[in-house]
Amino acid sequence: MTMQSLLGPVAALFVAATAAPVVAQTVEERRQRGGGVIRDLNRGQSQPALERMRQEFPFLAEATEAYALGDVWARPGLDGRTRQLAAVAAFAATGQLPFMKVHAGYALNIGVSEEELKEIVYMITVPAGISRAIAASQVLSELFAERRDAGTPR
Amino acid sequence: MTMQSLLGPVAALFVAATAAPVVAQTVEERRQRGGGVIRDLNRGQSQPALERMRQEFPFLAEATEAYALGDVWARPGLDGRTRQLAAVAAFAATGQLPFMKVHAGYALNIGVSEEELKEIVYMITVPAGISRAIAASQVLSELFAERRDAGTPR
Amino acid sequence: MTMQSLLGPVAALFVAATAAPVVAQTVEERRQRGGGVIRDLNRGQSQPALERMRQEFPFLAEATEAYALGDVWARPGLDGRTRQLAAVAAFAATGQLPFMKVHAGYALNIGVSEEELKEIVYMITVPAGISRAIAASQVLSELFAERRDAGTPR
Amino acid sequence: MTMQSLLGPVAALFVAATAAPVVAQTVEERRQRGGGVIRDLNRGQSQPALERMRQEFPFLAEATEAYALGDVWARPGLDGRTRQLAAVAAFAATGQLPFMKVHAGYALNIGVSEEELKEIVYMITVPAGISRAIAASQVLSELFAERRDAGTPR
Amino acid sequence: MTMQSLLGPVAALFVAATAAPVVAQTVEERRQRGGGVIRDLNRGQSQPALERMRQEFPFLAEATEAYALGDVWARPGLDGRTRQLAAVAAFAATGQLPFMKVHAGYALNIGVSEEELKEIVYMITVPAGISRAIAASQVLSELFAERRDAGTPR
Amino acid sequence: MTMQSLLGPVAALFVAATAAPVVAQTVEERRQRGGGVIRDLNRGQSQPALERMRQEFPFLAEATEAYALGDVWARPGLDGRTRQLAAVAAFAATGQLPFMKVHAGYALNIGVSEEELKEIVYMITVPAGISRAIAASQVLSELFAERRDAGTPR
Repeated sequence: MTMQSLLGPVAALFVAATAAPVVAQTVEERRQRGGGVIRDLNRGQSQPALERMRQEFPFLAEATEAYALGDVWARPGLDGRTRQLAAVAAFAATGQLPFMKVHAGYALNIGVSEEELKEIVYMITVPAGISRAIAASQVLSELFAERRDAGTPR
Repeated sequence: MTMQSLLGPVAALFVAATAAPVVAQTVEERRQRGGGVIRDLNRGQSQPALERMRQEFPFLAEATEAYALGDVWARPGLDGRTRQLAAVAAFAATGQLPFMKVHAGYALNIGVSEEELKEIVYMITVPAGISRAIAASQVLSELFAERRDAGTPR
Repeated sequence: MTMQSLLGPVAALFVAATAAPVVAQTVEERRQRGGGVIRDLNRGQSQPALERMRQEFPFLAEATEAYALGDVWARPGLDGRTRQLAAVAAFAATGQLPFMKVHAGYALNIGVSEEELKEIVYMITVPAGISRAIAASQVLSELFAERRDAGTPR
Repeated sequence: MTMQSLLGPVAALFVAATAAPVVAQTVEERRQRGGGVIRDLNRGQSQPALERMRQEFPFLAEATEAYALGDVWARPGLDGRTRQLAAVAAFAATGQLPFMKVHAGYALNIGVSEEELKEIVYMITVPAGISRAIAASQVLSELFAERRDAGTPR
Repeated sequence: MTMQSLLGPVAALFVAATAAPVVAQTVEERRQRGGGVIRDLNRGQSQPALERMRQEFPFLAEATEAYALGDVWARPGLDGRTRQLAAVAAFAATGQLPFMKVHAGYALNIGVSEEELKEIVYMITVPAGISRAIAASQVLSELFAERRDAGTPR
Repeated sequence: MTMQSLLGPVAALFVAATAAPVVAQTVEERRQRGGGVIRDLNRGQSQPALERMRQEFPFLAEATEAYALGDVWARPGLDGRTRQLAAVAAFAATGQLPFMKVHAGYALNIGVSEEELKEIVYMITVPAGISRAIAASQVLSELFAERRDAGTPR
C-alpha cells in the first residue's frame, strides 16, 4: 500500500505541488510534469479528451499537457483548491461550461466541497449575470448527480 | 485602540465573515451588511464609485450594496481570499479590467500577496488567452505601483 | 370569471406593473413580488427551472426570485413589452440562447408579436453580427413551432 | 417653419418611420434612406464618426449607412424608442460602451427619458452582471452631464 | 463539360473572385452575387440553413445573401482562402462553433488543407485560450470525420 | 549590408519560417526561437511591452516568448501573412483592440497591405457586428496615421 493511497487525493495533490518546482526544461520533461498534474486532479487517470486530441491535433495536445498543465497548473505559488475554484469561476463567467464541468470535477477530486463550488456559482452573478450563474448551476447539478450515480466518493 | 486595529485587515475580515450570517431580512439590513463587507475589503473606507452611483442610479447602488455585497459577498461558505482570487479570475477572463483592479486591491487589503494575484493572471492564459493575461498583468502592475507610491502597507 | 381572465395577459401585466411598487422590504416580500412577476409572464404558472434550482441552489433561486424578478423585473419604470424586447436583445447579443428563448416566450405571453421579436433579431446583426442573429433566429423558429404545436394562443 | 420643427423629434421619427418602407433598391437609395434615419436620430445632423470613416473605410461607411441604418434601422416593424432601448441593452451587455453612449444619445433625442435608460441599465444586471451595469451607468452619467452642460433640451 | 468542372473548386473561386466586382446595385443583383459566392464555397449547392431562414426570417436571409455574401464575401481585395481562414479564426475565438464548422467546410471545399485549419486552431490559443482551441479542435475533428464518411474529396 | 536588409521584411520572414522547424526542446531554445519571430515581425526590434513584462511577470513573459511566439507563431504550416490576418480577425472580433493594433503593425511590417487589413475589418461585420468593425477601423486608422507620421515605409 503506497503512502498516497493511504492519504487520499488531497495528499496526492500536496505531493504533486511539492514535486512541481523540479526543473522541467525539455518538452518531454514538461509533458511528464503535466501528466503528473492531470493524474493528481483526475484520480490517477489520464484525461480521455486529451488522449483523443493527440491523434489529430498533436500540437494542441502538447500545448495542453506541456504548457497548460505542465507549466501553468504545476506552478507551486497557488494551492490546488484555489486554482481550481478560480478556474471554475473563469470558465463559468465566459460561458465555457464543458470546461467548467471538467474542472469542477477535478476540484471535487482534490477535496473541494460541493458547497464551495456552489459559492463560486453564486459569486459569478456579480461579474457575469444571474443567467450565466443559472446555466452554470445546471451543469454543476448534472455533475453532482453523475458522481452520485457512479458512487464517486465525496 | 480597538481589537480590529490591533489585528489588522485579516482579522477584520474574519470578524465580518463570522458576523455575516446574522439574519438580514430587510433591504436596509442587507445594505448595512454590504456596507460592512466593503469596509472590511477597503481598509475601513466606503467605495467612492458606489457613493457617486447613489446620486443618479440609486437602484443600482442598492443592488451593489444589498445584493452583490450584502447577499453574495457576505456569504460565509467561502473565505474572503478565495472569493477575491476567483473574482479577479472572472473579471480578467471577461476583460473587465477596471473591476479586476478594484478587486485585486481588495485582495491585497485582506492579505492576499502580489505573487498569488500574479498566479491567477498566469492561469487566465488557459481559459482566456495569453493576450487577456497580458492585459490583466499591465493593470496589476499599475495597481502595485500606485500602492507602492501611496505607501500602502503590503 | 375573474376580471383578469376577461382581459387576458396584457391586462394581467398591467395589474402586476401597478402592483409592483408596493413596498417589499423583506426577502420574503421580495420573493412574493417576484413570484407574481413570473406568473404574469408565464401564463399564471411558476417557472419549472426555478423550482428545480430551489433544491440544490437555494440562494441562486432566491437571487432569481427576489432580486432578478422581485427587484429588477418588478420595477414600474419600463413597460413589460419593452423590458422583454430589451432582454431578448441582450441575451441574443451575448449568445445566451436558452435564456433568449424563455424571455421570448414571456414576451409572446404578454402580447408582443412574433414580428416584433423578429425585428429584435434583425437589429442584433448590428451590435453582434449576422451569425449571432442567425443563431437567434433558429431558436425563435423553434419556439414559434413549439407554441403552434401546443396550441398556445397568439 | 417646417412641420417637423413644430412637432419636435418624436414627430420627426414618426415621419421617418412612415417614410421608410418606400422601396429602396439601389445602394444609393439605401444610403439615402440611412442618411434620413441618422438625421432623425441625431437632431438633424449627420454622424461625425461616419463622415470620418468614409475617407479610409468607404465600404464600412456604406455598410453602416446603407445596411445598418438604411436597411435595419429603417424597418417600420419596431418603433424607434423600443429599437433604441434594445440597442442600448445589447451594447451594454456586450461591453461596447462607446456605441451604447451614441445610441443612448439618439434615444434621448427621440424622446426616451433618462429614467427609461436607467431602467435598461438596471435590467442588464440580470443577463450581464452587476459590473457591466455599473460600467454602463458611468457612461450614461457622463452623457447626461455632457448634455446638461451643452444645454441639450431634455 | 464546363471549364469549372475541369479546373475544380480553386478555379471556381478564382472565377467568382474576378466576377465579383461587377457592379451590383439593386438588392436583387446583390443577392444573385451572394448566391454565386455560396455556390463557389459550397460545391455548387445553395446553403440549406439559408433556404429555411427564407420562410420565417426573409429579411435576415436577405441580409445574409445580399450583404454578408453579396457585399462582404464577394469583395475582390482578399483571396478566398485567406478570408475563410480569418473567418474560422473569428468564429473559433468567439465560441461560435456551428459557424466555424460551416466556414471550415467551405475552406476545405476551395482547397484549404486540413493542416492549415489546424494551424488556425493552434493560433487561437493565444487570443482566446487553450480551452477555446480545444473546443474548436473537437468540432474540426467531427467535420473531418463526416467528410471522410461521406467520401468528400480532399 | 546583410542579405536581409537587401531583401526586406518579406524575405526576413521567409528566413524565419524556414528556420523555425529546427528542434527547440528546452525553454531557452524555445525563447530564442520566439525572439527570432518577434524580430522578424517587428523590424528587427524586440517588443517593448514584452521587455517590461519580464520584470514583474517573468512567467508570463516566458509564456509569450517561448509558447506564443516560440511554439505557435514559429510553426511553419501557415505563412506569416495569413497568420497575421487571422490573428487580426480574432483580436478584432473579441474586442481586444490594443492587441489587434500590434498585430496589424506586424502584418504591415511583413508586407501585408493596408487594403488587406481593411478587408479583414469589413469581414468582421459578419461574425462580430458592424460596431466591432467600426471600432477596429478607428484603431487601424490611428495605426496608419502613426506610421505615416513616423515615416515607416509601406
